[in-house]
Amino acid sequence: MHRLIVDLYPICRSITGDGMRSSLRMLQSHVPLALREVPSGTQVLDWTVPPEWNVREAFIANDRKERVIDLRNSTLHLVSYSEPVRARLPLAELGTHLHSIPEKPDLIPYRTSYYRRDWGFCLSQKQRESLADGEYEVVIDSSLEPGHLTYGELFLPGDIPDEVLLSVHCCHPSLCNDNLSGMALGTFLAAHLGGLRLRYSYRFLFLPGAIGALTWLALNEDRVHRIHAGLVAACVGDPGPFTYKRTRRGTAEIDRAVEHVLKHSGKPHAVRDFSPTGYDERQYCSPGYDLPVGSLMRTPAGEFPEYHTSADNTDFVRAGALEESLAAYLRTIEVLEHNRVFVNLNPRGEPQLGRRGLYSSTGGYGSTPEEQTALLWVLNFSDGKHTLLDIAERSGMRFGLIRAAAARLQDAGLLREAAPQTAANS
Amino acid sequence: MHRLIVDLYPICRSITGDGMRSSLRMLQSHVPLALREVPSGTQVLDWTVPPEWNVREAFIANDRKERVIDLRNSTLHLVSYSEPVRARLPLAELGTHLHSIPEKPDLIPYRTSYYRRDWGFCLSQKQRESLADGEYEVVIDSSLEPGHLTYGELFLPGDIPDEVLLSVHCCHPSLCNDNLSGMALGTFLAAHLGGLRLRYSYRFLFLPGAIGALTWLALNEDRVHRIHAGLVAACVGDPGPFTYKRTRRGTAEIDRAVEHVLKHSGKPHAVRDFSPTGYDERQYCSPGYDLPVGSLMRTPAGEFPEYHTSADNTDFVRAGALEESLAAYLRTIEVLEHNRVFVNLNPRGEPQLGRRGLYSSTGGYGSTPEEQTALLWVLNFSDGKHTLLDIAERSGMRFGLIRAAAARLQDAGLLREAAPQTAANS
Amino acid sequence: MHRLIVDLYPICRSITGDGMRSSLRMLQSHVPLALREVPSGTQVLDWTVPPEWNVREAFIANDRKERVIDLRNSTLHLVSYSEPVRARLPLAELGTHLHSIPEKPDLIPYRTSYYRRDWGFCLSQKQRESLADGEYEVVIDSSLEPGHLTYGELFLPGDIPDEVLLSVHCCHPSLCNDNLSGMALGTFLAAHLGGLRLRYSYRFLFLPGAIGALTWLALNEDRVHRIHAGLVAACVGDPGPFTYKRTRRGTAEIDRAVEHVLKHSGKPHAVRDFSPTGYDERQYCSPGYDLPVGSLMRTPAGEFPEYHTSADNTDFVRAGALEESLAAYLRTIEVLEHNRVFVNLNPRGEPQLGRRGLYSSTGGYGSTPEEQTALLWVLNFSDGKHTLLDIAERSGMRFGLIRAAAARLQDAGLLREAAPQTAANS
Repeated sequence: MHRLIVDLYPICRSITGDGMRSSLRMLQSHVPLALREVPSGTQVLDWTVPPEWNVREAFIANDRKERVIDLRNSTLHLVSYSEPVRARLPLAELGTHLHSIPEKPDLIPYRTSYYRRDWGFCLSQKQRESLADGEYEVVIDSSLEPGHLTYGELFLPGDIPDEVLLSVHCCHPSLCNDNLSGMALGTFLAAHLGGLRLRYSYRFLFLPGAIGALTWLALNEDRVHRIHAGLVAACVGDPGPFTYKRTRRGTAEIDRAVEHVLKHSGKPHAVRDFSPTGYDERQYCSPGYDLPVGSLMRTPAGEFPEYHTSADNTDFVRAGALEESLAAYLRTIEVLEHNRVFVNLNPRGEPQLGRRGLYSSTGGYGSTPEEQTALLWVLNFSDGKHTLLDIAERSGMRFGLIRAAAARLQDAGLLREAAPQTAANS
Repeated sequence: MHRLIVDLYPICRSITGDGMRSSLRMLQSHVPLALREVPSGTQVLDWTVPPEWNVREAFIANDRKERVIDLRNSTLHLVSYSEPVRARLPLAELGTHLHSIPEKPDLIPYRTSYYRRDWGFCLSQKQRESLADGEYEVVIDSSLEPGHLTYGELFLPGDIPDEVLLSVHCCHPSLCNDNLSGMALGTFLAAHLGGLRLRYSYRFLFLPGAIGALTWLALNEDRVHRIHAGLVAACVGDPGPFTYKRTRRGTAEIDRAVEHVLKHSGKPHAVRDFSPTGYDERQYCSPGYDLPVGSLMRTPAGEFPEYHTSADNTDFVRAGALEESLAAYLRTIEVLEHNRVFVNLNPRGEPQLGRRGLYSSTGGYGSTPEEQTALLWVLNFSDGKHTLLDIAERSGMRFGLIRAAAARLQDAGLLREAAPQTAANS
Repeated sequence: MHRLIVDLYPICRSITGDGMRSSLRMLQSHVPLALREVPSGTQVLDWTVPPEWNVREAFIANDRKERVIDLRNSTLHLVSYSEPVRARLPLAELGTHLHSIPEKPDLIPYRTSYYRRDWGFCLSQKQRESLADGEYEVVIDSSLEPGHLTYGELFLPGDIPDEVLLSVHCCHPSLCNDNLSGMALGTFLAAHLGGLRLRYSYRFLFLPGAIGALTWLALNEDRVHRIHAGLVAACVGDPGPFTYKRTRRGTAEIDRAVEHVLKHSGKPHAVRDFSPTGYDERQYCSPGYDLPVGSLMRTPAGEFPEYHTSADNTDFVRAGALEESLAAYLRTIEVLEHNRVFVNLNPRGEPQLGRRGLYSSTGGYGSTPEEQTALLWVLNFSDGKHTLLDIAERSGMRFGLIRAAAARLQDAGLLREAAPQTAANS
């Protein structure tokens, strides 16, 4: 995953254009992603797909023709969606188009102006202060023309049509945690799941933030109700602890699954309620959809000092953190896949486990192994009302242990699955 | 407010009689209070309006004709509702009619005997101990005769008939926090609201404790159901932190409004559940009515050492505390007045706020101002189910900020009010 | 109770056989217990009543004919349900049938092998280490033959058929806290209740653990629904604080009653949720029954170091602890017996308690006695919905005080009982 991030890092991505296209094509070497092209001007809910933006060159040169700021050095130097400019300006006038962070003098900020025609450059405060008075040549060889919005989509059909959604925003240029980390995790997760037989169907979306999610929702209104659970993957590569942001519903199965996984991770983590700020969970959880989509992150956007600056680079994200994040996503999926309701076929009193080889036959002094206790929990609460996750939560045991106990009891003829749930619900 | 308290202080009030009448007339110079007169003997629920009590003179004189205890020095000296007495008694016999507080030797206690014919004097322990043996002349020139119970009522009609009740007990003689403070706050609150156009109708009751509330309830049974919210104002002038005592229902709108205001006051405060002790919330919250009436106090009755003694004087109540209390009542009313349910007219995905001038158009580095975040909260939770107070609580933001965001969104055509609620409900 | 424990201590009990029979007969000298005999081979739910086990003699003798381990010295020495053996074995082979606790070298463990034919001896680690190499004579003069499972049952009919169940496991040999303490407490509780007129009917079961409860349930399926509340009495004699384990339902009346009693005990105690481990609450709370049966213990089984060893002896249980436990059971029963719903006959405003002699008539300075406050709580919440226990919990007052207030108000004609509840419910 870290290698993929390193490869994606130099590309100048934005919400439309060739940067997005070539990034998604890079992912296609790992997974059979379909690229969707939606024409500029398409009405998507309250929004309109904007003109396609591409840029060939952008720089500021001093009167000695030296390029003091150049897009080639960092994709962050150019305000994303800057309109074309070719001009000579005195420093004072140029200054109104420059963005820097006085309190972080070495870092280049990341800025955008998608929906208001403007142009600008981002640079470090030190670079800014080094600009001598005088005239500067400004060149932005960009185009804002009818074209397409591009996003990637991968659908893995499962046994039932109910879907698990994984959504990743891909519009940021050279920023690693936000969100090349999500792109890498989404890609590797899709590649892994692609090789398995799954109960749920899985949908992976790699799209520009906000406008991409709005576009997908607008084009898939008839399919939206199938989403049984979803996660927005963002900021999953930094070394901080996990943060899970709940769905708007707050107690959806995905919420409980992630919280179970984090609780049993044995590591510090935080869970917070939904808020309408953040990334594309804002769209999925808008009141007209109210989809059960949460967001499993490490340090949330805006809460690490490197956020939206040139310090969110390939050093800031760690292979180990990415791996741990992927594992947490996989364990969450394990819960979703196996979280079923069973019925104890011998509900009056305990069944005699000993004669079925499920229980130690010598009683008295000595503690009961966890595996045997799990059998009792599953038997007692398999009344057709409790899911295995309910039982795991109530017992305080790991889901994996409860799931294994259910399998043993099912094999022994003591348990049957309750009427399967096929309609999307959470 | 403090000046009004100073003016009211010397009057010898009780649950009936001229002390109550002249006190209420003093309030009439601030607000157009109606004085209601209910004849003695009127059956009010399980009670009977008692004879009217008036007193002209009351003293104890020693054998040198010196008045050692005199009602003129403190209205607390006479047990309220003392029957007329003219007698000479030896100290031992007189002592059975004296009340003092051994552990607070300088303070005169406050005592009453409304519903059992009796007489008595209250005095400081020091005064008591200074009484020499011998005979004393006792004079209580009081009358207990058919007359009236008097209370004050002010009704401010609003856009809807649903009422907000403010109830203040006025029967105590020279005790400032309990409850001249409530009388002053109620008067100033009524004067302020009288100048405003209001959604709710407001009813102010200035009445004798217990029997007054019972009388009002008995005479207004057909109107009681209109009370949508209410507060009993008592002990609002001492320097202690706020205490809110919830309604019997516990989660009525008034409960949540007061708790929101206190939470955002940034000051220490306490919230407690309803109990059937206290002041007139006992009557309003009796099970046959169960009205949503709470009590917003500073230090509750019985919980400050000056309570029901001569130390609850004009020094104990503070102008600043009264002002702060009035502000808390006003902020609570702001919540009630503006706590409505809205419907997001663009519920699928977020509407594009930028093109409506509601959102900063330059994205990227930098934090979102609180006002913009408030817009997102209102949009996301305006699903026809959440009130603005729900949204304020869920977001952790001040009600004022949420209310302003709703107004901006309504102006922008993105929000409409849900079907207005006209029937009393909470 | 402690004397009864001392008398029961030496008997070699097991889940069937004469040890159980003679123990139950010892209880019959205190209470008119009926002994039930259920034939071996009877199918009880998923189980079969096992052969009856009796043992006359069991020992290990060394080659000098010295009995190095002898059942006569401790009933724990023999693995319960050991099959008959007469053999000479070298130490190495004998060792596979010996059980000791290396980390507690002085204690003999308690072991059983009810449902798998086996034999064995338990001994202290020190004894084990003192066995010299050589041949040993092993004699277990036991029988495993068709016979009966024996349990004791006592039914105390009350005014209504709804039952309170007290269940005690009696199958352990010389172990005092687990569970001669429960047997003693159950016996004395039954003896005490036998002399009273009671609202509920009471059923006491003294039975072998697991198989006994399963047997009773299997034979009484038509009666099981009458159980309104129940407790499993176990480990009630040790000096530790109380632990209450909730019913599977978690908020049954018995749960709230016990928790109320413990809360007002003024002593440290713990309350834990139901789990499907423990004693016979496992059977009563199996999902096909889901009876409201909790367990009020002192230190739970497995959580004191003496558990299932020879250290759980007559010194470990204390007369004072047993007495305190019995008192807690009795106070719980007081709550169940008197926990009713009343209706305030004067629900609008407070009734005038003073003229009914229920309230101090002199108001003002001074605190209200607890008894008067209790009257107000009962009046305010006797709306046909709240039980007296609800009111006790809400007021924070002891149930006894609330119950007394209700009785006084009923006598004064201010309260009537709501339609009596006769069907089993909780």
